[in-house]
Amino acid sequence: MNDLKDIIKNRRSIRKFQNKEVSTEIINDLLYSAKWSPSWGNSQCWELIIIDDEKQKYNLSQTLTKKNPASLAARNAPIVIAICAQKKKSGYYKGEAITKFNEWFMYDLGLVTQNICLTAHCLGLGTVIIGAFNHNKAKKILKLPANYEIVSLLPVGYPAHSPSPTKRRKISTFVHKNHFNFPK
Amino acid sequence: MNDLKDIIKNRRSIRKFQNKEVSTEIINDLLYSAKWSPSWGNSQCWELIIIDDEKQKYNLSQTLTKKNPASLAARNAPIVIAICAQKKKSGYYKGEAITKFNEWFMYDLGLVTQNICLTAHCLGLGTVIIGAFNHNKAKKILKLPANYEIVSLLPVGYPAHSPSPTKRRKISTFVHKNHFNFPK
Repeated sequence: MNDLKDIIKNRRSIRKFQNKEVSTEIINDLLYSAKWSPSWGNSQCWELIIIDDEKQKYNLSQTLTKKNPASLAARNAPIVIAICAQKKKSGYYKGEAITKFNEWFMYDLGLVTQNICLTAHCLGLGTVIIGAFNHNKAKKILKLPANYEIVSLLPVGYPAHSPSPTKRRKISTFVHKNHFNFPK
Repeated sequence: MNDLKDIIKNRRSIRKFQNKEVSTEIINDLLYSAKWSPSWGNSQCWELIIIDDEKQKYNLSQTLTKKNPASLAARNAPIVIAICAQKKKSGYYKGEAITKFNEWFMYDLGLVTQNICLTAHCLGLGTVIIGAFNHNKAKKILKLPANYEIVSLLPVGYPAHSPSPTKRRKISTFVHKNHFNFPK
């Protein structure tokens, strides 16, 4: 257990990478972790695009909001994983959304992403989850069919910096007993 | 790395639990893993409700769709964690949603959930992620303020069965190179 606790605690968002390739073996380990993610009714709506083409990485980096500190990461990482989903699978039953939240694939992709990020960290690699970009432009660049969505971009590579942990809420500020029981 | 690979591979959805309490120490380990989850701009929108009250568990189990095989799990597990979020934090900037997906908290809660599920499995506990229930009824039962949402329920306890792995898509069916490159 201590190992997993350390992996979870010591994972950082990495935005600068060494000029060092990520091997096929390592990419396969990341994909293996994705494969074993849980999902809505085991619907496995995920699609993962591994991007190592320089032009594609550049084009995708241009879809980020200008202020995004991960813009260079998307351009310079040896690989970027585009985390995508097929629509109308997760959260649906017989073609109809059956919960309050129509985009349940967001939740399932979060589960997949964390499996990938923890595995990467465990193998000595760094990742940063990018969500603030123009999704429609990225969808076009990646030639996604209409019934798929790209949700996040994940640059992956060997870290070239060691960021300090970001500040975290104390557990007591987000845990409740039996019902929501404190005012914010 | 083999350890994490095994944890990820061997986690199952557990719907039957032993009549055995989950210690405060273990609950704290789960909360610690939640605390160190990544999130949109480190916004940490999560709120976790630990439910051990029998009446609350029963009431929540009644919000599940009738066919849901996890209905008994929500009622009989020693604890159920309600995974909730404050709205308009994740995916927002100065009060405005800044991506195509307004409910980015779904993605962040997926990240948190996987940290909790892996940690639980590592400690010998089982979990099952429940998404198919009446969210508005559950929100009322849990006395959530209007600007919060409950997304999933997570029964947690010592497993009383050992389910086989569910069938998974082969990696080759969900991985693409540089752009979406096969028809479905």
